[in-house]
Amino acid sequence: MSFTHVAIIGLGLIGGSVGLAIQQHLPGVRTSGFDRDPDVRRRAADLGLVGQMHDSAAAAVAGADLVILCVPVGAMGTAARDMAPGLGADAVISDVGGSKVAVTQALQAALPGRCIIPAHPVAGTENSGPEAGFATLFRQRWCIITPPADAPADRVAALVKLWEDLGAMVECMDAAHHDMVLAVTSHIPHLIAYTIVGTASDLEQVTRSEVIKFSAGGFRDFTRIAASDPTMWRDVFLNNSDAVLEMLDRFLADLAVMRGAISEGDGQAMFDLFSRTRSVRRSIVAFGQDDARPDFGRGDHGKDQN
Amino acid sequence: MSFTHVAIIGLGLIGGSVGLAIQQHLPGVRTSGFDRDPDVRRRAADLGLVGQMHDSAAAAVAGADLVILCVPVGAMGTAARDMAPGLGADAVISDVGGSKVAVTQALQAALPGRCIIPAHPVAGTENSGPEAGFATLFRQRWCIITPPADAPADRVAALVKLWEDLGAMVECMDAAHHDMVLAVTSHIPHLIAYTIVGTASDLEQVTRSEVIKFSAGGFRDFTRIAASDPTMWRDVFLNNSDAVLEMLDRFLADLAVMRGAISEGDGQAMFDLFSRTRSVRRSIVAFGQDDARPDFGRGDHGKDQN
Repeated sequence: MSFTHVAIIGLGLIGGSVGLAIQQHLPGVRTSGFDRDPDVRRRAADLGLVGQMHDSAAAAVAGADLVILCVPVGAMGTAARDMAPGLGADAVISDVGGSKVAVTQALQAALPGRCIIPAHPVAGTENSGPEAGFATLFRQRWCIITPPADAPADRVAALVKLWEDLGAMVECMDAAHHDMVLAVTSHIPHLIAYTIVGTASDLEQVTRSEVIKFSAGGFRDFTRIAASDPTMWRDVFLNNSDAVLEMLDRFLADLAVMRGAISEGDGQAMFDLFSRTRSVRRSIVAFGQDDARPDFGRGDHGKDQN
Repeated sequence: MSFTHVAIIGLGLIGGSVGLAIQQHLPGVRTSGFDRDPDVRRRAADLGLVGQMHDSAAAAVAGADLVILCVPVGAMGTAARDMAPGLGADAVISDVGGSKVAVTQALQAALPGRCIIPAHPVAGTENSGPEAGFATLFRQRWCIITPPADAPADRVAALVKLWEDLGAMVECMDAAHHDMVLAVTSHIPHLIAYTIVGTASDLEQVTRSEVIKFSAGGFRDFTRIAASDPTMWRDVFLNNSDAVLEMLDRFLADLAVMRGAISEGDGQAMFDLFSRTRSVRRSIVAFGQDDARPDFGRGDHGKDQN
């Protein structure tokens, strides 16, 4: 089987990008959409993010054989209940949320007996809203699918195929493992970035203007991540707290070791860590998950290089 | 006055970029150079990083009215002593090191009575070595100059002018303040990045392959910084430990607050922090210190955007 009509609920960066990507890569597939914010609905319609915009979630999902919920993870249950009256009996319900155990539970509670196959495309930018979406967001990025044990194999295969058609590489794993992996590759980096940007903003000895001026020493990289959508990230931390706290405590233990090395002037401990982290970067570039150019190929360095 | 002959000691990313930038922007100024590694000397000569390569530091600085030490901050004292026999009586000695109190002390101890005007261009990439240098590295970046109280005004003005000619914006401040500012805008971000990349590499629950695959969720940004030169960064932490520890403890206190918010499910505390950090990013982009395009304009998102 393959999907012929995809409904998208929530038309921000990810929902909008899904809509555009389906229209570009799968022109034979119908797309319909809804966002609970009337202003977002109007802008998304003007941008053509989906083929048909609707004024209610129930109307948007009517006739769809796949519904993708693209709302913050804390809003999944409500979004699912709102659309339920319009949902066809055989529709597959999926999502794009950054935590999977909590979202799976919320969807199963809201839609008992339905075919629910959660997913998470590991892709995004620091921008949000319907204008931030673009059709190539998922290209060469991984999408993790976390099928419950009783998910029908043909439906799972169809969802895998859909994401591959949008340019993604797909891996299936169980929801709890996803939450642990993403805690370290995404949630802790965001928490750290938000926190250090907050710390830097609150100093008395260093002015905010100095922090901004001299940010090219490394800090500016963290501000990009710390500009991500606040609602989305609040919900991720509220809905993946166990894994985040476990990974955070490991990071804090490692940071305490480095604090000790600095305090005691143990240069060897620093050199050992700083040497071995280089190879992780090389692997990420080698596996196509980042730009090989220095400084991400940023505009100010990517041109006129010697 | 203005400088007519600049000697560069140490020909890695920064030294090589200084040499190329002077040759591009100030073709009337002579450049000479030395690196204590014979292999780097040969590669730097092949790359034309300076006009004249020498086989000793003393020979490289002979006749120079400005010497710029571009070696790790822990090597400044030794590099200064090595070149002393060739140094002219009126030569200005400067550097590019990332910590300024310790470097100023090391240079004053090695070269008593000399005109020492430390400097720090806040620019770089994650790459190192002579091949990493390029002439436009300093363009639109800040260079901080920390003149000691007795530095002659005309020499300070000439150094300011040189960095401006290389494309930089210059700010003068005292060395201790520099060390506090850079602790927060550069040193702590590097320490955090090195540590989290180390933490992620050592997990049992999550494989290294998973960390690499799913790094686009935020982690990959940290790996770029954690690929920076290990010797340079070891020396920075050994030579700015007081300011780094002070800033690290503030960050740890703020992170403990966020840990508590996650543990207690306090979404409002998270939302408040995540909302106010967005404005810092906007300021950095507005002040020309980062690329305005989403995701730094990375290759995979910068093209074909919708």
